[in-house]
Amino acid sequence: MSDSSTPLVTPATDLLGHQLEHEQVVFANDPASGLRAIIAIHSTALGPALGGTRFYPYASTQAALADVLALSRGMSYKAAVTGLDLGGGKAVIIGDPTTQKTEALLRAYGRFVESLGGRYYTACDVGTYSEDMDLVARECSYVTGRTEEHGGAGDSSVLTAYGVFCGLRAAAEATWSDADPDAVLAGRLVGVAGVGKVGRHLVRHLIDAGAEVVVTDVSAAAVERVRQEYPGVRVVASTEALIAEPLDVYAPCALGGALDDDVVARLSARIVCGAANNQLAHPGVEKLVEDRGIVYAPDYVVNAGGLVQVADELEGFSFERAKIRAGRIYDTTRAILERAQRDGVPTATAADRIAEQRMLEIGRLRGIYLG
Amino acid sequence: MSDSSTPLVTPATDLLGHQLEHEQVVFANDPASGLRAIIAIHSTALGPALGGTRFYPYASTQAALADVLALSRGMSYKAAVTGLDLGGGKAVIIGDPTTQKTEALLRAYGRFVESLGGRYYTACDVGTYSEDMDLVARECSYVTGRTEEHGGAGDSSVLTAYGVFCGLRAAAEATWSDADPDAVLAGRLVGVAGVGKVGRHLVRHLIDAGAEVVVTDVSAAAVERVRQEYPGVRVVASTEALIAEPLDVYAPCALGGALDDDVVARLSARIVCGAANNQLAHPGVEKLVEDRGIVYAPDYVVNAGGLVQVADELEGFSFERAKIRAGRIYDTTRAILERAQRDGVPTATAADRIAEQRMLEIGRLRGIYLG
Repeated sequence: MSDSSTPLVTPATDLLGHQLEHEQVVFANDPASGLRAIIAIHSTALGPALGGTRFYPYASTQAALADVLALSRGMSYKAAVTGLDLGGGKAVIIGDPTTQKTEALLRAYGRFVESLGGRYYTACDVGTYSEDMDLVARECSYVTGRTEEHGGAGDSSVLTAYGVFCGLRAAAEATWSDADPDAVLAGRLVGVAGVGKVGRHLVRHLIDAGAEVVVTDVSAAAVERVRQEYPGVRVVASTEALIAEPLDVYAPCALGGALDDDVVARLSARIVCGAANNQLAHPGVEKLVEDRGIVYAPDYVVNAGGLVQVADELEGFSFERAKIRAGRIYDTTRAILERAQRDGVPTATAADRIAEQRMLEIGRLRGIYLG
Repeated sequence: MSDSSTPLVTPATDLLGHQLEHEQVVFANDPASGLRAIIAIHSTALGPALGGTRFYPYASTQAALADVLALSRGMSYKAAVTGLDLGGGKAVIIGDPTTQKTEALLRAYGRFVESLGGRYYTACDVGTYSEDMDLVARECSYVTGRTEEHGGAGDSSVLTAYGVFCGLRAAAEATWSDADPDAVLAGRLVGVAGVGKVGRHLVRHLIDAGAEVVVTDVSAAAVERVRQEYPGVRVVASTEALIAEPLDVYAPCALGGALDDDVVARLSARIVCGAANNQLAHPGVEKLVEDRGIVYAPDYVVNAGGLVQVADELEGFSFERAKIRAGRIYDTTRAILERAQRDGVPTATAADRIAEQRMLEIGRLRGIYLG
């Protein structure tokens, strides 16, 4: 969503105020295990709400609530635009995962997820891992992202990176329409900010496509690993330095808010397409991006590969099938760029429109009685 | 509970603060029907949380939250002390029932209750009626208080009044232990404040037991009905005037907060036992009552007849069985008065202790694995 970078600052006291568009917000409390969690179900128009469980030491319940409301809304839009039969949800567990994560706490959490009867499916997110989901699943049927031994799909960064790359291909073909589509990235300079789990795999795709790659990361270890795997990759010291490069493509794969007024003004890249969430630092940035002639492949569209992967688990995971589905991010991105041109709106707005249209048109079909 | 008259003023922003003892708080939102509801599950230690749905035009979400937290806690204690296999829950729908109550809203609410998979059973409360529960039940399996045509128990005021009378009998026998137990209320002056649905039936029981009855009510119609049914009943103009009578028993059956410092100081009654909720105006009043030698039959103990009735519905309603169960409020009240004496604590404290002990001792039994 174009305003996804600004968390909904709905005060909890107005949680049921008319601004709230979420269907359901569940506070779960189990003093014995220390569990304090909020599960937000934004929409079930397209199916059960799916979204990860973030385990994070929020400064306040208010901060946790703002985060879970914004994140669950984002999941609705991501699932909708990606063509999945899923609604949007998310959960946060308030606490420090390094000290407070116990079997009892995770299983208590699982019982609350179970109590929602399948309206919400959970998955991994910041601070939770496949092993944690295995524990949650011992109390609950509505868990994805489990370990491979337990029928899960394991690490989702491979398909997330693949989806971003497919979206980038679509944006590149639209931008350099005279180029040979099979070599559209050959020789282009791509800057990747963040080469952690996802960025690293993206680098591989880019090199395979013949691009020149320049990277940066706050983690020296992450940089070193990429340097060893791909000796041709150039490293710069900071995102500032990366932005200053004569980039053709900028791929933010680290923290949110990568595109602020300043970055947009200085960027030489014709395309922005990366794995990071909430790349637009504030509502309105999408206009500045458009005015500068930069093609922005909306974050939640191109980074949906991980969601595609966990969604595939619901049918019994097949990596090949999930990869084919993640590959359709190419088509989705194309459709969004075309819609943006047709409607004369920023790409982020076009993505929102397609997502909202699908929630409305497909969501109403459940009204046709079948028994 | 002795502090039930002071709503938990937990700010919503601290909803998951360590003070919160509730298991789960669910915010439900359906803009299309206008539904804005909060379902609070205080405890499921003894079984599914049961409590009514209050439909009320709260001034704020905050006020609604404070109410539903306090009310659901009260239900845990009531069910526990009454010996039911039920936990405590409650729901509030924010809005004006006279203008906002629609089929769509009630059924949307029913879907959210259904989504909790039986952890919460609902019932009638202020602003909701058996006909409303019939509508809720069209979307939901976890509904009591339905109309008799739909297997419900209908009006619960008959058994509520009967339970209060049984509690009063127990308190009277303890207070006037030299009297013939079968005539312990004969000739006693009983003041009934509030002769609406419940108070009216209580008047009948009192007259049948040979008591003299003096009543008051803000509703002239309610007073007139009692006057016609029981010409021997004396009417006074206000609760103030009622308190000033040389009462043997005071039965508050109207609003909460009936026992404040002033009333306790002026009361001549040896016993307080009525149907009203939250009779203690603030924590500590139970001590003043005890110091004045007044026997207080705790409100949530003696007014549990309505809960007994709806709980009976879960087995297929039988009025005779439910009446026998409501009659056990006599035994519960006796046990509480004895415990208070033994522990040297106010009766309200003794009731809380018995309730808490049962939640702990019986609640843990589920830990014995059965498959």
